[in-house]
Amino acid sequence: MAMKVALLGCGVVGSQVVHLVDEQSEELAARIGTPIEIGGIAVRRIDRARGVDPSLLTTDAMALVTRPDIDVVVEVIGGIEPARSLILAAIGAGKSVVTANKALLAEDGQTLHAAAREAGVDLYYEASVAGAIPLLRPLRDSLAGDRVNRVLGIVNGTTNYILDRMDSQGAGFTESLEEAQALGYAEADPTADVEGFDAAAKAAILARLAFHTQRVTAADVHREGITGVTAADIASAKAMGCVVKLLAICQRSEDDKSVGVRVHPVMLPVEHPLASVKEAYNAVFVEAASAGRLMFYGAGAGGTPTASAVLGDMVAVARNRLAGTSVAEGGHDTGLAVHDMGETITSYHVALDVADRPGVLSKVAEIFARHQVSIKNVRQEGRGEDAQLVLVSHPAPDAALSRTVDDLRGHDMVREVASVMRVETFSD
Amino acid sequence: MAMKVALLGCGVVGSQVVHLVDEQSEELAARIGTPIEIGGIAVRRIDRARGVDPSLLTTDAMALVTRPDIDVVVEVIGGIEPARSLILAAIGAGKSVVTANKALLAEDGQTLHAAAREAGVDLYYEASVAGAIPLLRPLRDSLAGDRVNRVLGIVNGTTNYILDRMDSQGAGFTESLEEAQALGYAEADPTADVEGFDAAAKAAILARLAFHTQRVTAADVHREGITGVTAADIASAKAMGCVVKLLAICQRSEDDKSVGVRVHPVMLPVEHPLASVKEAYNAVFVEAASAGRLMFYGAGAGGTPTASAVLGDMVAVARNRLAGTSVAEGGHDTGLAVHDMGETITSYHVALDVADRPGVLSKVAEIFARHQVSIKNVRQEGRGEDAQLVLVSHPAPDAALSRTVDDLRGHDMVREVASVMRVETFSD
Repeated sequence: MAMKVALLGCGVVGSQVVHLVDEQSEELAARIGTPIEIGGIAVRRIDRARGVDPSLLTTDAMALVTRPDIDVVVEVIGGIEPARSLILAAIGAGKSVVTANKALLAEDGQTLHAAAREAGVDLYYEASVAGAIPLLRPLRDSLAGDRVNRVLGIVNGTTNYILDRMDSQGAGFTESLEEAQALGYAEADPTADVEGFDAAAKAAILARLAFHTQRVTAADVHREGITGVTAADIASAKAMGCVVKLLAICQRSEDDKSVGVRVHPVMLPVEHPLASVKEAYNAVFVEAASAGRLMFYGAGAGGTPTASAVLGDMVAVARNRLAGTSVAEGGHDTGLAVHDMGETITSYHVALDVADRPGVLSKVAEIFARHQVSIKNVRQEGRGEDAQLVLVSHPAPDAALSRTVDDLRGHDMVREVASVMRVETFSD
Repeated sequence: MAMKVALLGCGVVGSQVVHLVDEQSEELAARIGTPIEIGGIAVRRIDRARGVDPSLLTTDAMALVTRPDIDVVVEVIGGIEPARSLILAAIGAGKSVVTANKALLAEDGQTLHAAAREAGVDLYYEASVAGAIPLLRPLRDSLAGDRVNRVLGIVNGTTNYILDRMDSQGAGFTESLEEAQALGYAEADPTADVEGFDAAAKAAILARLAFHTQRVTAADVHREGITGVTAADIASAKAMGCVVKLLAICQRSEDDKSVGVRVHPVMLPVEHPLASVKEAYNAVFVEAASAGRLMFYGAGAGGTPTASAVLGDMVAVARNRLAGTSVAEGGHDTGLAVHDMGETITSYHVALDVADRPGVLSKVAEIFARHQVSIKNVRQEGRGEDAQLVLVSHPAPDAALSRTVDDLRGHDMVREVASVMRVETFSD
């Protein structure tokens, strides 16, 4: 009895899934314990699907996902609807589901997981974050006996490519974006990537898994993109022995009562393993109580890597199905809430263009003190009218740091706030 | 009904497992679906075990592993016997097994896996390679639909620490080893680490999993340690933009008919992600056909990280047991054989002290050509009596490269072969 798969979507990833299932059929059968077979492929327009057996194609996705002979539904359409309705219908009909849909999981993962739990079927989604990197299942399974304290991820290849170019070639943002577009690393409309929307969806998924809380959605994620990152920021980071990365950060609060989830540019020490993640690669760094520091690195996008992750999930859910079991998620919720960005403890790097006059530093220090932000170090560059004061704060609530910067902007001794960026710190 | 665990061994890892099971009991119960409980602990001497409930202790390990109320046996004794007999007895009595025993798995994994398959129980061993890094299950499960071509691993923290010191401080091997010993990174008798025995056992386990061949044992692994690595080698690597790492390398042959498994020092480009693995950290780099390049990074040793990996496995096998299923391994063997080191395709870096006389290079090139080894690049350093010729070969069978070096050693124009090391190459 073959395991029958319904495929929703036949674009770059979908067609690659079909290709791999075909190419690896013997090996897959051996690893699952029974052959796997594509039973149908739902597409929007039949005449557009290429390279697949035409007799498998249908435009009636709803009929396909509820067809009695289908065991597993693989969704690679993306977007919220009709993906959500189709997945819920599939689950309702007792099918296990594999999806790569980060937007849907970030927005409404709770509903999907609850439906899967109730129906006793699997909902796997390894491909939704960091492409081919086996990350979600290790977080869920291998660290099941551990306690995650912080997750820091480079989860968007486009922005990493742009920042890497800016760092290695001293190029500006616009120039680097254009290069990324020319090479196919960035889309014509790069908003989802450069404004951090893509990373924010992934951050929500990571936070949910790492902290076992179903409450986090994309809307809970504080989000800042990289469009404001300047060549001066990158140079300032270099002077401190840092690189600039766009990170998705999920962190447990000190009192263990809530989590903070955010996406923004970060200055990161060059010695940190995340700092050496180049080009469009992704990597996720996990700090766990027992396991210590872990990092998972690999290709974050692309049809073949994503299809590889989908295939890994297909094998797992097929095996579970054959064994008559399923892995429920979200049944034991820690209920940890998400706290505001203002309450998140961060550190700031601030570069100020000031007049080199006696009393400037004391004025600046007074403004920091007013908001109870203590200064970790100060460095002065240049002299006279070109003087720049570079300060790094100790960790403090983000709201206090933000108000400090507002006050600095308004002060007449500060000609310009040349660069503001958060600095991520690591204990040894 | 609690899931009952028998623990074999109560040293650094074992006592930490007891501690974590105790500390995380609620969370573990939630994740498994039933409470987990230590039913007994086998030790060699009862008066030596500390910090655990004395009523759990026994010196009769064989009676413990076959006790009817035990579900899962966790073996953290290490070594071949009595571990093997105890694990086989446990499997024979229908228990699932979690082990951290790399030596045993490398020597006789085939017997253990066959017994587990036959009995329909789990045999999990995440902790045996690279400590807390979730690596073996991702290789087995997430890449189940993929095809691994090469695995390169820094799997021994002691040697990585020593090589990192030699690189960063220009120190010699002996001095760096002594520092590692003083800091507890190396044992008083460092043979198992510095001669590559530890890494070779892990290489065998990795090769078996990556290529789905049960045939590989530790004895099949070509092994060279780092005792011969000199400050001159490190300097020579630096001059080429490389660092020296002790790597475990498992590679599929070009014709896909066999695999090569080896442990030896390697010159690696500084841009490669493995090059930035510092101190005693471990990392395993995987090249797969669909997933592309992946890296798994983390702490490779230590009681708590290892216990974390054991705990992750315990949760998995307990869940499987509750669901009445198990994951068989080795049932579908590719049967790939291991080829000799001589047939393995490698590249050499060779530094020769030569007299700076006309004709030296042509003589040296002739020796390379005699063994059908082509030269990728040559660089001459110094002049007169201090001249050094540094050559890097194109890939060739290791036996041919080795014979080339032998001939160079015997030639009267070569005063000394100052450095010989393999260079690992990466396609883009």
